[in-house]
Amino acid sequence: MKTPIPYYLAQILDKVRPNEGGEVADYIPELATADPDILGVAVCSATGHVYHAGAGEHRFTMQSISKPFVYALALQEFGLAAVREVVGMEPSGEAFNELSLGGDHRPVNPLINAGAIVVNQLIDGVDSTVEDRVETIRSFLSRMAGRELEIDEQVCQSEVDTAERNLSLAHMLRSYGIIQDTAHDAVLSYTKQCSISVDVRDLAVMSATLANGGQQPVTGEMILDADVCRLTLAVMSSCGMYDGAGRWMAEVGIPAKSGVSGGLLGTLPGQLGVATFSPRLNPEGNSVRGEEIFKLLSADMGLHLMSTERRFGVYPIREIEQTAEEAIFYLQGHINFTAAEAVLYELQQDNFRGARLALDFEQVTGFNTIGRRMLKEGLRRFREAGVDVAVIDPRARMTNLEMSDGTMVPVAEPDDYQIAGEGT
Amino acid sequence: MKTPIPYYLAQILDKVRPNEGGEVADYIPELATADPDILGVAVCSATGHVYHAGAGEHRFTMQSISKPFVYALALQEFGLAAVREVVGMEPSGEAFNELSLGGDHRPVNPLINAGAIVVNQLIDGVDSTVEDRVETIRSFLSRMAGRELEIDEQVCQSEVDTAERNLSLAHMLRSYGIIQDTAHDAVLSYTKQCSISVDVRDLAVMSATLANGGQQPVTGEMILDADVCRLTLAVMSSCGMYDGAGRWMAEVGIPAKSGVSGGLLGTLPGQLGVATFSPRLNPEGNSVRGEEIFKLLSADMGLHLMSTERRFGVYPIREIEQTAEEAIFYLQGHINFTAAEAVLYELQQDNFRGARLALDFEQVTGFNTIGRRMLKEGLRRFREAGVDVAVIDPRARMTNLEMSDGTMVPVAEPDDYQIAGEGT
Amino acid sequence: MKTPIPYYLAQILDKVRPNEGGEVADYIPELATADPDILGVAVCSATGHVYHAGAGEHRFTMQSISKPFVYALALQEFGLAAVREVVGMEPSGEAFNELSLGGDHRPVNPLINAGAIVVNQLIDGVDSTVEDRVETIRSFLSRMAGRELEIDEQVCQSEVDTAERNLSLAHMLRSYGIIQDTAHDAVLSYTKQCSISVDVRDLAVMSATLANGGQQPVTGEMILDADVCRLTLAVMSSCGMYDGAGRWMAEVGIPAKSGVSGGLLGTLPGQLGVATFSPRLNPEGNSVRGEEIFKLLSADMGLHLMSTERRFGVYPIREIEQTAEEAIFYLQGHINFTAAEAVLYELQQDNFRGARLALDFEQVTGFNTIGRRMLKEGLRRFREAGVDVAVIDPRARMTNLEMSDGTMVPVAEPDDYQIAGEGT
Amino acid sequence: MKTPIPYYLAQILDKVRPNEGGEVADYIPELATADPDILGVAVCSATGHVYHAGAGEHRFTMQSISKPFVYALALQEFGLAAVREVVGMEPSGEAFNELSLGGDHRPVNPLINAGAIVVNQLIDGVDSTVEDRVETIRSFLSRMAGRELEIDEQVCQSEVDTAERNLSLAHMLRSYGIIQDTAHDAVLSYTKQCSISVDVRDLAVMSATLANGGQQPVTGEMILDADVCRLTLAVMSSCGMYDGAGRWMAEVGIPAKSGVSGGLLGTLPGQLGVATFSPRLNPEGNSVRGEEIFKLLSADMGLHLMSTERRFGVYPIREIEQTAEEAIFYLQGHINFTAAEAVLYELQQDNFRGARLALDFEQVTGFNTIGRRMLKEGLRRFREAGVDVAVIDPRARMTNLEMSDGTMVPVAEPDDYQIAGEGT
Repeated sequence: MKTPIPYYLAQILDKVRPNEGGEVADYIPELATADPDILGVAVCSATGHVYHAGAGEHRFTMQSISKPFVYALALQEFGLAAVREVVGMEPSGEAFNELSLGGDHRPVNPLINAGAIVVNQLIDGVDSTVEDRVETIRSFLSRMAGRELEIDEQVCQSEVDTAERNLSLAHMLRSYGIIQDTAHDAVLSYTKQCSISVDVRDLAVMSATLANGGQQPVTGEMILDADVCRLTLAVMSSCGMYDGAGRWMAEVGIPAKSGVSGGLLGTLPGQLGVATFSPRLNPEGNSVRGEEIFKLLSADMGLHLMSTERRFGVYPIREIEQTAEEAIFYLQGHINFTAAEAVLYELQQDNFRGARLALDFEQVTGFNTIGRRMLKEGLRRFREAGVDVAVIDPRARMTNLEMSDGTMVPVAEPDDYQIAGEGT
Repeated sequence: MKTPIPYYLAQILDKVRPNEGGEVADYIPELATADPDILGVAVCSATGHVYHAGAGEHRFTMQSISKPFVYALALQEFGLAAVREVVGMEPSGEAFNELSLGGDHRPVNPLINAGAIVVNQLIDGVDSTVEDRVETIRSFLSRMAGRELEIDEQVCQSEVDTAERNLSLAHMLRSYGIIQDTAHDAVLSYTKQCSISVDVRDLAVMSATLANGGQQPVTGEMILDADVCRLTLAVMSSCGMYDGAGRWMAEVGIPAKSGVSGGLLGTLPGQLGVATFSPRLNPEGNSVRGEEIFKLLSADMGLHLMSTERRFGVYPIREIEQTAEEAIFYLQGHINFTAAEAVLYELQQDNFRGARLALDFEQVTGFNTIGRRMLKEGLRRFREAGVDVAVIDPRARMTNLEMSDGTMVPVAEPDDYQIAGEGT
Repeated sequence: MKTPIPYYLAQILDKVRPNEGGEVADYIPELATADPDILGVAVCSATGHVYHAGAGEHRFTMQSISKPFVYALALQEFGLAAVREVVGMEPSGEAFNELSLGGDHRPVNPLINAGAIVVNQLIDGVDSTVEDRVETIRSFLSRMAGRELEIDEQVCQSEVDTAERNLSLAHMLRSYGIIQDTAHDAVLSYTKQCSISVDVRDLAVMSATLANGGQQPVTGEMILDADVCRLTLAVMSSCGMYDGAGRWMAEVGIPAKSGVSGGLLGTLPGQLGVATFSPRLNPEGNSVRGEEIFKLLSADMGLHLMSTERRFGVYPIREIEQTAEEAIFYLQGHINFTAAEAVLYELQQDNFRGARLALDFEQVTGFNTIGRRMLKEGLRRFREAGVDVAVIDPRARMTNLEMSDGTMVPVAEPDDYQIAGEGT
Repeated sequence: MKTPIPYYLAQILDKVRPNEGGEVADYIPELATADPDILGVAVCSATGHVYHAGAGEHRFTMQSISKPFVYALALQEFGLAAVREVVGMEPSGEAFNELSLGGDHRPVNPLINAGAIVVNQLIDGVDSTVEDRVETIRSFLSRMAGRELEIDEQVCQSEVDTAERNLSLAHMLRSYGIIQDTAHDAVLSYTKQCSISVDVRDLAVMSATLANGGQQPVTGEMILDADVCRLTLAVMSSCGMYDGAGRWMAEVGIPAKSGVSGGLLGTLPGQLGVATFSPRLNPEGNSVRGEEIFKLLSADMGLHLMSTERRFGVYPIREIEQTAEEAIFYLQGHINFTAAEAVLYELQQDNFRGARLALDFEQVTGFNTIGRRMLKEGLRRFREAGVDVAVIDPRARMTNLEMSDGTMVPVAEPDDYQIAGEGT
């Protein structure tokens, strides 16, 4: 069988194709030549499965879609404290204040042009050159996409030639000492970042890398810390759609970022990345069909950050084997607060009164701090009640075995239990 | 064993207790008498497990925390379109514009006072009386909490006596024809709503009801549509923390709402509800210790909307039984896009070439539209390839069996398969 | 001969009469009944000559036109420092911020409703009653108009019944402690002030009283200090026409204030007062024909604050009589810096080398400090050069005769000079 | 005698000299080298008398003080309608919006940098070069000052090298198509304008040229139309002092403009020009001692636009000679509305019942339209009453002698009257 997912994506394209509203961006001459009818969508799950429909391999320049990724790179390189010194993280209507600089002259967030220019300048440090800085960014974005990306020099040149607005921002930022490069160099460097060429499949994979906590889900490379992804997604969520942040969150509920070339990218943390391409823009500068696709994905496919469905994942108790004397709880997946709560609740309900209890971690992929502490504390309490407790942990997932009373959690082998191995 | 979760919550209280910063609200005389040292926290999972530490049963008035719930009630009663006619859903810094009315004189969102007064007026319709309207709200919030809540008439009276600011808003709203009641009645009705008395356990359960798609997780009552919960949480997410929306989303990542009496409530959709109480407020009017507790819950417990960990839940394939001839995929949980994608991916990888394939839905709790369509389409494709496909669906979870070619999905019994029942 | 001035004013009315644009204010029911075609204009010179055309004796309520006058009364009673504690003096677009309260919650100026309510509350002090306060204001405005004005209780009642917006402002001001009366009383008191009934002739005279430095030009009563008039006119100039302050200053150049009943009042300091009445208002709430009349008065009649024509007045040297030995300079009018400069320049040019020099002040109406000092210093310098100097000052206009070297200016009689009395 | 006016100016300097507050501007390196203690003031009457104290001949660059003059030049060249297409005339707090562009992207007024750059670009038209445009401006300002002014190329270069902020504005303006030159050229041209070198005497004379309706009061050259001066002064009045417009109008009441080099210029229409120099600036960028001098000039010298003193000037009736049969009214000065009103009022009071009445215009300097019409109408009415009326107008000041009934005003000679020549 061939998976029908591309077929569903194609159906969505069919729904939005009749909408010929909007205009191709014309303020950059090279963008104005885009074929307005090209239409594509791609989805990549956090497990690395990539699907697409329409023009999946049509290349276009990233433009503003590069902003959240380079912000993530800056956070990874310098940490939040240093980045926050030069750029804020609050929403800002572009329309309200054309510069969107706060009272301290910092751009209010990294997803407006002023902020993105500042973030670009951070990369590689003040002593870097335009060339080195751009190469660092290109190389990073290539790892996110899983292939070597290239700069579209023709678009870049066309954009630099008409970059009055960005030059204005760069001069203003330099007047306040927020950037050190000349305005020309700052804009050149930022424009090259914007001119990196991708297709919707690339963008979906890059987005899924954020959704997946920084691990590229196709290549498996660890590129960003989970914290960096979390911060980046938070900023996309509150600042990505400018003035209409509240309506977008209500109607679509997918942290998103658009580009003037016609791309639109969204991320559902822990779940998937989505990307669309259609060059006709609404007056706010967002792809008309792209917005429609996102609304359909959110409504029809139930993809919404505020969706109250419990997300797909692994129930933390794979199996319980027990007799009057012995019990083994076979756990699986990542053990965080919510998973540990489910395990402890089950243990409490089970009301086990036998002599020997073990938790099996063979299928556990990891713990966070609170998940580990909660399970150890549960075991300690059983031991206080006279039960002989232990963990079966052949892959050493628990890492730290010390309990709150200073003693260590006993480690056992499956063979130590009569009941072991009788199940799946 | 007794679950150690309250113990962890108590540890968090110990961490924040030394912080004696902030001041008890004094502009409402009756609130000024609150004991500043009272401190409590409660958590309720979307499965209805309630935990607390500290002053779990100390009663206080809901104040602004009532706002998102009454907004949800209005959405449920009248639908988004009607509600949006009188109140927007965009973030607004209170500091920027004291009235926070948009260009069309509608309050910009329902979580500022002007918006909340308007939403209160919607309940029961324009012809209702203050008493009936308040009773409708009290009754609704009681169902959310799972017990009969009462109005603290002493606080209410004290607040009405000093309600200059709300009277100002109500007169302004009436001058624009946004509300019809007299300013006095509108403020009285809203103040009574604010004076409903709860404890942190109540709030955690009410919040978990939103997290759980509108089903009260303890009583099991269906109170709100999932769509209403989604919209309410979206608005909390973008408008709940006023000016600092961006920073709160980055640092805490839990849609939240605070009250001037000292309560703070947060919701993680699909996961849990949290509530804290501590009356000392920072200059923005939020509980000082409450904010600290939320930061610790987010950081230490890994609770963050943008967390890229896959959420705890049920992996959609419980088990696969197959021989060269037959295969049964035992599914479980809610089948949405992400779950269906995982099932279809597995079917494709499995590359089944036998004669008979069945999907077993006995443990499936439900489908959304796209999840159902995707699985039916997968089966149709196997049938086209010559496989004898069927579903085993004793609880009739699939509801609609028509496939895209107009034929019906065949329904089978477990006994129809030789392999059935050999597993768990 | 009868003066043709009313004829010119009538011509202006004829020019604007065809303009039937705008709508009679309808938000106060009693105002909505006004006859939209009534049209009148009046001018009063700073010398007390009153002219009018059209409906010169049609009565209407002052509404916002009362604001600058009651502000002047507050300045007169309490001084600028005390008044500034509760109301600022900076321009504010109404549209920008509906309350127009500054960061310190003070209304930004006294000509917006919030500011006018605050100023009304100042009159007679916090312990006054509504009745006493209103009577103080009515009595003051009556002295300005030169006849007993009355409150139109019917309009007042109609306005109080629909005063949602002002009640909103009053509650807000009280919430910040800017006013002490209940919102109801503050609005009642302010509305009574607004309901004082006048005609355009009254308004022109009241305006001319400001133009004339506080002396009612018809009755001759000294009502306000010149400083108070200056401040009041300054505030009218920068805050009187809301958003369009710059355009009004450029196009019309007459400090002005309009009222929602259809009145419009303007003042040219030192020159005259103007008032018009026509009830149809533009969307900004200003009388359509009233604005037109002011534009014609400014353009056709050369009345503009920035007009560079030297204003009509008295040249300070009425006559010079001199021989080789003696000289008398006969001065006239008010001797301020500009007048004294002209006198001193003339003395210097004259290059008087005789033995005796006198300045005659018989026709001088007064001195300001610098004018007096300048002339005394000029005389002192002639004395140092050996000239026998003196002043002829039968009405004791110079008041202080001490020169900068501590000696006194000698006083002479006309008869002391041979040349005296030969001239006019 | 030597006029004591410089002595009074020197006294004012002595009063402000102890104030060493403020800092010399340091963002332009060349300005930072200014001697902070230099202090000067100059006054020029509308009659062309120039006085100064302190550093009257110390040269400094005009900076922003050039803005109102070049705006006047643009108005003179192109008219208000054309100029308003690219720059507005409303006040704007710099602090509020760093670009101060309105909704249509036009700078809100010509006295902020963005507006001044746009106005500079207007001069000589779009096809001009930087050199020609700057020469046109330098030449115009030289005629205003009455001597050949020069550009301080050293300051200009220093300023161009650090013109980040102005480059930012120029790029933004160009991005909106408001200017056509490259940002570099626009800023160079504007900076050269700012670098024109003057002393306080020059500025006082230039300001007095505005005060005098466009006629340079020392050279007598007609440089600007009176309308242009009026508009320029109106804009200075409402936009010259940024955020503090209301306070400045109340406290000082002199339309003013400051420059970052330390100059401050003020104009009282019809009266005089003032200029000060002291390089230490307050945080708003205005000269600390300069502001103090203006406050003293306004308070001590009674110079205030809203001053209700009737300005010095010529009373329109120089003399009346009359017998029972004949009367001659000898008029003088400029006959505008206010002057004509005084003449007509006197004629009416006089109640002349003789046979022959003449108005003598020998000392009249001119008429405006309404003044001329009013006197002719007065004469016509006397004629209707049977009086033999005429004008004595040897210098043909009345220009148009046609009355409202189509007949001509009779012209007489002094010798036609028996009484003529008996007076002064």
